[in-house]
Amino acid sequence: MLAFAAAVMCFATATAEKTEAPAAEVPGPILPEGGAAAVIILSSIAGFVFAMYWWVKNAEIVIIPGKDLTRVNEFLTATMLENIYKISEKVSHGATTFLYAEYRYMLVFMVSFGGVLYFMLGTSMSNPIGDAKAPESPWMNAFLSVLSFVIGAGTSVVSGWIGMRIAVFCNSRTAIMATTGMETGENTLGFAAAFETAFRGGVTMGFALTTMGIISLYFTVIVNQAYFGTSSRMAPELYECVAAFGLGASSIACFGRVGGGIYTKAADVGSDLAGKIEKDIPEDDPRNPGVIADCIGDNVGDIAGMGSDLFGSFAEASCAAFVIASESPELSTNFTYMMFPLLVTAVGVLVCIGTAMLAIQNCGVTKAEEVEPKLKQQLVVSTVAASVAMFLLAGIALPDNFTVGGTPTTKWAALVCVLAGLWTGLFIGFTTEYYTSCAYTPVREVAGACETGAATNIIYGLALGYLSCLPPTFAMAASIYTAYRMANLYGYALAALGILSTMAIGLTIDAYGPIADNAGGFAEMAHMGDEIRYVTDSLDAAGNTTAAIGKGFAIASAAFVALALYGAFVTRVQIPVVNVLDQRVMSGLFIGAMLPYWFSAMTMKSVGIAAMDMVGEIRRQFQDPELIAGNKDPDYNACVTIATNASLSQMIPPAALVMGAPIVTGILFGKFALAGLLPGALVSGVQMAISSSNTGGAWDNAKKYIEAGNHGGKGSESHKAAVVGDTVGDPFKDTSGPAMNILIKVMTIVSLVFASAFVG
Amino acid sequence: MLAFAAAVMCFATATAEKTEAPAAEVPGPILPEGGAAAVIILSSIAGFVFAMYWWVKNAEIVIIPGKDLTRVNEFLTATMLENIYKISEKVSHGATTFLYAEYRYMLVFMVSFGGVLYFMLGTSMSNPIGDAKAPESPWMNAFLSVLSFVIGAGTSVVSGWIGMRIAVFCNSRTAIMATTGMETGENTLGFAAAFETAFRGGVTMGFALTTMGIISLYFTVIVNQAYFGTSSRMAPELYECVAAFGLGASSIACFGRVGGGIYTKAADVGSDLAGKIEKDIPEDDPRNPGVIADCIGDNVGDIAGMGSDLFGSFAEASCAAFVIASESPELSTNFTYMMFPLLVTAVGVLVCIGTAMLAIQNCGVTKAEEVEPKLKQQLVVSTVAASVAMFLLAGIALPDNFTVGGTPTTKWAALVCVLAGLWTGLFIGFTTEYYTSCAYTPVREVAGACETGAATNIIYGLALGYLSCLPPTFAMAASIYTAYRMANLYGYALAALGILSTMAIGLTIDAYGPIADNAGGFAEMAHMGDEIRYVTDSLDAAGNTTAAIGKGFAIASAAFVALALYGAFVTRVQIPVVNVLDQRVMSGLFIGAMLPYWFSAMTMKSVGIAAMDMVGEIRRQFQDPELIAGNKDPDYNACVTIATNASLSQMIPPAALVMGAPIVTGILFGKFALAGLLPGALVSGVQMAISSSNTGGAWDNAKKYIEAGNHGGKGSESHKAAVVGDTVGDPFKDTSGPAMNILIKVMTIVSLVFASAFVG
Repeated sequence: MLAFAAAVMCFATATAEKTEAPAAEVPGPILPEGGAAAVIILSSIAGFVFAMYWWVKNAEIVIIPGKDLTRVNEFLTATMLENIYKISEKVSHGATTFLYAEYRYMLVFMVSFGGVLYFMLGTSMSNPIGDAKAPESPWMNAFLSVLSFVIGAGTSVVSGWIGMRIAVFCNSRTAIMATTGMETGENTLGFAAAFETAFRGGVTMGFALTTMGIISLYFTVIVNQAYFGTSSRMAPELYECVAAFGLGASSIACFGRVGGGIYTKAADVGSDLAGKIEKDIPEDDPRNPGVIADCIGDNVGDIAGMGSDLFGSFAEASCAAFVIASESPELSTNFTYMMFPLLVTAVGVLVCIGTAMLAIQNCGVTKAEEVEPKLKQQLVVSTVAASVAMFLLAGIALPDNFTVGGTPTTKWAALVCVLAGLWTGLFIGFTTEYYTSCAYTPVREVAGACETGAATNIIYGLALGYLSCLPPTFAMAASIYTAYRMANLYGYALAALGILSTMAIGLTIDAYGPIADNAGGFAEMAHMGDEIRYVTDSLDAAGNTTAAIGKGFAIASAAFVALALYGAFVTRVQIPVVNVLDQRVMSGLFIGAMLPYWFSAMTMKSVGIAAMDMVGEIRRQFQDPELIAGNKDPDYNACVTIATNASLSQMIPPAALVMGAPIVTGILFGKFALAGLLPGALVSGVQMAISSSNTGGAWDNAKKYIEAGNHGGKGSESHKAAVVGDTVGDPFKDTSGPAMNILIKVMTIVSLVFASAFVG
Repeated sequence: MLAFAAAVMCFATATAEKTEAPAAEVPGPILPEGGAAAVIILSSIAGFVFAMYWWVKNAEIVIIPGKDLTRVNEFLTATMLENIYKISEKVSHGATTFLYAEYRYMLVFMVSFGGVLYFMLGTSMSNPIGDAKAPESPWMNAFLSVLSFVIGAGTSVVSGWIGMRIAVFCNSRTAIMATTGMETGENTLGFAAAFETAFRGGVTMGFALTTMGIISLYFTVIVNQAYFGTSSRMAPELYECVAAFGLGASSIACFGRVGGGIYTKAADVGSDLAGKIEKDIPEDDPRNPGVIADCIGDNVGDIAGMGSDLFGSFAEASCAAFVIASESPELSTNFTYMMFPLLVTAVGVLVCIGTAMLAIQNCGVTKAEEVEPKLKQQLVVSTVAASVAMFLLAGIALPDNFTVGGTPTTKWAALVCVLAGLWTGLFIGFTTEYYTSCAYTPVREVAGACETGAATNIIYGLALGYLSCLPPTFAMAASIYTAYRMANLYGYALAALGILSTMAIGLTIDAYGPIADNAGGFAEMAHMGDEIRYVTDSLDAAGNTTAAIGKGFAIASAAFVALALYGAFVTRVQIPVVNVLDQRVMSGLFIGAMLPYWFSAMTMKSVGIAAMDMVGEIRRQFQDPELIAGNKDPDYNACVTIATNASLSQMIPPAALVMGAPIVTGILFGKFALAGLLPGALVSGVQMAISSSNTGGAWDNAKKYIEAGNHGGKGSESHKAAVVGDTVGDPFKDTSGPAMNILIKVMTIVSLVFASAFVG
């Protein structure tokens, strides 16, 4: 990886030297072109080294240098350790099997879709669009697009894979570290050690993924520059080819998010239905044949799926910014100006390194209540620090005055857009928490409704989700207004990049959650006792809250990414005005608004179908009384195989819908219908994403609130009602809700990349 | 009423004589102006007389001339009759009390909102909009608007009232007639008699309401013409004042639909939760203190609320058509041309009279299976007959060629728009049936999912609702495309009128359902035995199916009405192009798409809160063992009072949201934001309306399917799971779903009427 980065750096420097002098009237940036390249590459290297350092630290855990090894091992019996390793092996093997199987599908997709892309672009680009002239060698441009597509897709695959490996690696280690100090009653040591282990795992994942993204996108730009050169005249063509990088990244994310989402929830819902609800066997009990599949699901859905989702957002936001900036007469004259989007993320990595250190070194987490504030501190500190950093960056890497999308603007207006995104993301994150945490009224109301049964729980939960759309929508509307006023369509892209500038920390915290969750599962399965389970459960509870915040971030970023891509799309197909009154646009709006419903129906039913398959298998195994008595191991593999096959076969139709809808609409009904379809899907999808995620999160936490002894506590009628809500919420919050982000992004980038095909 | 109609007719004829000669270049219609007035008035009189005739026939029931009175009374014991009368009195009294209380709120609203309207319009109309010049006497125009508003609102109030009275009147009579032939085992007689009674009740309600609507709108036009005259130069001003009629009708509908919807479901859910689920007491059991409130709820929600909803649609569609047509140089020259929208509905009444006769005279319904086809036949026959009638009408009442919204079009293109609406309505109705009837796969799948518990039932039900948005959306998109291509914005209005042209039959069938439902409730409460209950249940089951179809109709008509009003709004505020890329429009779209979620959250929680109040009271009464043993009557009035107060206080916030949102947006953020807000709310609201209604309907019928002996039958675990779904579905299908129609219509008409205030 380092060698690769170094090679790219040399290439970049060589290229930077070739760059033409900027046109006389646009003053050059304070940050020279070589400097911009250096910032991008060095930040990425720093971030990557940071990730690797903590990976190595975690890898040392079983030996734990400088700490009292015997203490850990005194409490940890040999059987426990053996159990943990056995489970870890099974989970690791199952996750690998699933991802390999999924990657086979993706390979077929990449080859065939790459072929389609090549022929459609090659053919259509040969005809000029409106008054823009056709590129000199359309088939070469098509080839470069396909190359960018493959690099983007490949990076996404590798990122998902690495994320999953890291998570599986850290699950068992977190469980082991929770035992630190346990036999002497020094619970605090266990808290600190387990928290650090899980958090370091998150850091490894977050920083590795972000920096790989930056480097591979930078590399794609360099490769394309090697062909086009860096003249501003060629910039639009160049960055159109680069845009396919975003398509590659997000189409893989589409499969990953949808496939992983179905896997994780089919396993979860299936195990719960057959085990917890029917047989009254506790969650994560090793007698349940579905538990291993459930653990694997957390890794492939929440880690690999979510990682590729955010990576896709980053790739698409950057590509949208490139495409829009490439039409600007000032920005396209200078490499530093053009690279501003990547610089935002690169500088964000540096900010995130500093922030993460606050939680890793002497984190001071010694009890349950301290975990959540620690994680929230990360979000707030990184946002504040990034605001300052972006101020400095805008000062040195953008021209004082420039024109974009025909609108004159300034570097400070651009800064406002970045900050609008950054703070909107944080605001939406915290409102999401308000609606999903049992510390506040909304979830407590839902928990109270459980007293009158499952039906009122469902009604109140759905109403909560609907209501939770209010603050995010108002915040987004305000940001949309600001961003566009400040810098036209470029403002949307900058706002998206603003949200994503603290992505490394966001990913760290998002990955922390499932790691802590699975550590709890491991502790249960290895019979490590209630004390350890208390530690891991506390870590997990805080992870759930921050996961909710992370979902808010992801939705907000997806919305702005989609807006930016939409702006790039209409620029590309030369529709200066998208008139709602036009019957094509209006019909498109209607159908677009319906697509999220269609997509949700598909994914939710997929979870249902896959879960039913699981339930059948678990019930079959439960007929053996030896298994229930705990004298015999269940056949975990049978469940893993069922979840793998069911989720992969169920993944195709929703993915096909998302990628096919814009292509079919564009070809059959033309660019105006598509220009209506996309905002329809966007505005309707954002609402569904927010309400689904929050409803599901609220049901989950209402159940936890009741389990904590309220409204009758565990085992009461209220608790049974709450379990129904929690089970309904699973596909909402972990399959259809998060997959909606993908829908609104992928549809728009497909439209953008295939734009030239919809004009004729 | 007849005297009133006659007076209007004289006035109309007098006015028609004064009409200026049409401009030389536009040939006059085949149907002369006096002829058009005659068609409108005579059709209305015919429809009203038809309604009254069947009212009188039903009023004769207790005596039943020409049939063997003794047979009826032999089976009907004196106690039964006494019980029925007692219950009937209670229901009638409770419904009256509720409506009076509701009307007090409405009166306050009408006076205050009328005042606001007067001052805002008077002030704002004094300033010219764009290049249109200010009216000569703005305060007089404002006064005429308020007058139209009051007439519209008043008619809506009266219609709701009449509908409720008729329904309450027919409930008991249907139950009594179900006993016909019972003691000799001739069940068929009872079927025929009960079906006819309920259907006649529907006819009375449907035709009375439709004809009152036509007459009062016609009267409003005449009143305004008396001031403005009939010159085409004054047409735009005239019909802008008339548009407030639509606002009056729909704002009352807003209160009626929301208040009634909350009442009916609070009573229903409350009684079910405390009685059926907690105490295992059967539905409609007289020991449950909530049953009377439940019966009242059916009358005030399904009858009064739904009636005022469709009346609002008719008023708004006609007003939108008037406003758009008034800008057309050809249409505005001739009274017949201008009155085409009213002629469509008037001719529709004649078609519906013919159709209804097929079901009333020798209907041939002798067993359960024959009821549903009979009702569906009504829909199909009226649509086919209306298609022919519209062809003839377009031929004689429209100019061969005319220009509307700047687009040249023809009478046959206008006909296509009407037919597109008419058939889209029927198509959407039948797809709704497909998704909600237990005769087809979707509901059976949901019923099957009950085997694995309430959670999978909820997941499958929600997925079904989401999926059911597909066919209606595609059909609507196709119609939108066609209508606009054919006749610009006028096409939207004509499509809406097309759907509503068979409104009299639609209302008949919609009212039939709750009448049959309550007849069943009466039979249960009066201990009339299982045989009678079987008859009323069969009638009710068919009513549920057709109610689902009716909901599809209502949503489709609301969507087109909103489109037409939106067209009228942008015409009025002079925004020739609503550009999605404009940041104001885009922000508006986002917030608009969120409003249906906010509104749903409010209405669903309102039902929850009101239902909780009911549950508390019912539980309190159930503590008395004498009541459970059946030795003591419960205190029904306490529950009625709770439902009344809770629903009225909960009705205010959602109604305020719907009416306030466009006014606040328009004043604070201007016409462009509002021009984005409205389509956002429309496209998102249509999806929510469809999915909510169908999900709720599917859960209801899945429960019925299980009760019919499938998947374990009544009392099984599957059945318990199905009951949870049914309870969740209640506020979905009868409160938030149908209220969504109101949201999308009222927001747009408020925008239209207040348009002049948003321009400065």
